[in-house]
Amino acid sequence: MVTLAEIERARRALPPQVVRTPLIASQDLSAVAGGPVWFKLENLQVTGSYKSRAAFTILNNLSPEQKARGAALSSSGNFASAFAYMGRLLGIPTAVVMMDQTSPLKVAKSRRYGAEIVLCGNNFEERWRVLDRLQAERGITAVNTFESPDVVAGHGTLGLEILDDLPEVDTVLIPVSSGGLIAGVATAIKERRPGVRIVGVQPEGSNAVTESVRRGEPVRIPEVRTICDALIAQTPGRLPFTHIQRYVDDMVLVTDDEVKAAIRWLVEYAKQVVEAGGAVCAAALLTSKATAQGNTVALLSGGNIAPATLAQYLRETEA
Amino acid sequence: MVTLAEIERARRALPPQVVRTPLIASQDLSAVAGGPVWFKLENLQVTGSYKSRAAFTILNNLSPEQKARGAALSSSGNFASAFAYMGRLLGIPTAVVMMDQTSPLKVAKSRRYGAEIVLCGNNFEERWRVLDRLQAERGITAVNTFESPDVVAGHGTLGLEILDDLPEVDTVLIPVSSGGLIAGVATAIKERRPGVRIVGVQPEGSNAVTESVRRGEPVRIPEVRTICDALIAQTPGRLPFTHIQRYVDDMVLVTDDEVKAAIRWLVEYAKQVVEAGGAVCAAALLTSKATAQGNTVALLSGGNIAPATLAQYLRETEA
Repeated sequence: MVTLAEIERARRALPPQVVRTPLIASQDLSAVAGGPVWFKLENLQVTGSYKSRAAFTILNNLSPEQKARGAALSSSGNFASAFAYMGRLLGIPTAVVMMDQTSPLKVAKSRRYGAEIVLCGNNFEERWRVLDRLQAERGITAVNTFESPDVVAGHGTLGLEILDDLPEVDTVLIPVSSGGLIAGVATAIKERRPGVRIVGVQPEGSNAVTESVRRGEPVRIPEVRTICDALIAQTPGRLPFTHIQRYVDDMVLVTDDEVKAAIRWLVEYAKQVVEAGGAVCAAALLTSKATAQGNTVALLSGGNIAPATLAQYLRETEA
Repeated sequence: MVTLAEIERARRALPPQVVRTPLIASQDLSAVAGGPVWFKLENLQVTGSYKSRAAFTILNNLSPEQKARGAALSSSGNFASAFAYMGRLLGIPTAVVMMDQTSPLKVAKSRRYGAEIVLCGNNFEERWRVLDRLQAERGITAVNTFESPDVVAGHGTLGLEILDDLPEVDTVLIPVSSGGLIAGVATAIKERRPGVRIVGVQPEGSNAVTESVRRGEPVRIPEVRTICDALIAQTPGRLPFTHIQRYVDDMVLVTDDEVKAAIRWLVEYAKQVVEAGGAVCAAALLTSKATAQGNTVALLSGGNIAPATLAQYLRETEA
């Protein structure tokens, strides 16, 4: 398992390009949620999501020979942009394997940052196969983001920032897909402050970690159906799942309609642009599926939503 | 004229409800604007705009008798919400005179915070008349926000925060309506760092201060036509104008279409929801009508845009 010391080391290594994102109090959400709520604004992170933290950690920890040959990972979008950006920053060639269904905005962004894009079929197995091929044929280091300790350590840096900015925090809500993010954040926080409550939030249509926690082992859900295009893992990573079993107190599910309403609320009251997957914690609080027990932090994990999609959600939720 | 000491005093008096808004670097705008750019996020200010600063300063400086009888001002919307909020905070009854054309969102917000709303015809003279009547008939203190030293001092607090967060700032861009905001910010900054360049930005269709600066005296423009519903003063305040003549280096004009494009850009790249009047400085930089000479701060002054209006602008600017 990844230790607090490894997370602290990852944090010390972060470059100035990784934004020390603000933690802002939301008087409006506090009035609704039953306790004081803060937002951690990772939608303001460079490349628009928290993935930049792990992307840097992964690439920075490669050996000199690995750095020269380049690295690849598969991603539903945000990890791809972050990986491409950090590759350019560190002078490491990057390739990203993306499913055909990935939003064109996210594909274009990764390409703009200089990554080689390899598109593949719309399932996770296909992504792993393409990655293996890249490694075998070209000597590129293929990163399994579901099982990488660097992912857990890199994302954990965000938890340390929350503790620094709000030492008296009581509850932290984190969006969950394969579990790397919440694994890192929960480890960072619980190892320093065991009394803090850590709650994971998933879309109802993409609940692999919730199901796995319920059954006590990593399970694979038969299908994923959600507008949260950053939260589509059909199974948890085994490494993150071990962390989740030790450190996470509760899991909460929200519907896509609740996510759209949360996106609208965040526009109107928090003045923040947040993508669907990034808005699940706000949705959980707005619907009282999670409550603000003591000082509560909700992570807004990303802001990469196409303007046309945002406009559509704002229209759909009008009145 | 309002002094630096008065601005510093106003800052010390601000309550915790007034947000110490973040200053965030924009790597994306820096790449476009020719130099490093930061945003000062007053769209995250309580009630959604910088007006909360002056609203508190005005009400806090009333005498005990004035506080008991209540206070009134006229506003195009943001000042009204801020005034209502701060009245409730301080236990002072407030009334706001708003023109019939004011956005329903802004009217509802002021009412929600507990202010008495008095609607009037769509011109500034009518607003003054109604204010005078409230004062004469009910003993309410009518605040002329165009000429109040508390407005200049209150808004100046924002300039002090910029200097604290970025001591090496070289250029500051500020949206301009009647001039109270830029008067305060320019005074705070220039009195501490005379070498900083202060640039005001107005919509082409609402350029009273720009015209007044050109002619060397406050002038009244015949009509106002802009989507920037927070920037509609037909004439500068005389007090702010004196400050502007002494401290402001340049004025820049942007079109409504450029403002819409900036709102979209801010959604896509900065993940911020900014109202039209709050986006003029971003518009000036994105169009190269203003350039980032050295370390440049662009104030995003407010985020009170109706979701339906934002959706409409996003649609209109789609490719």
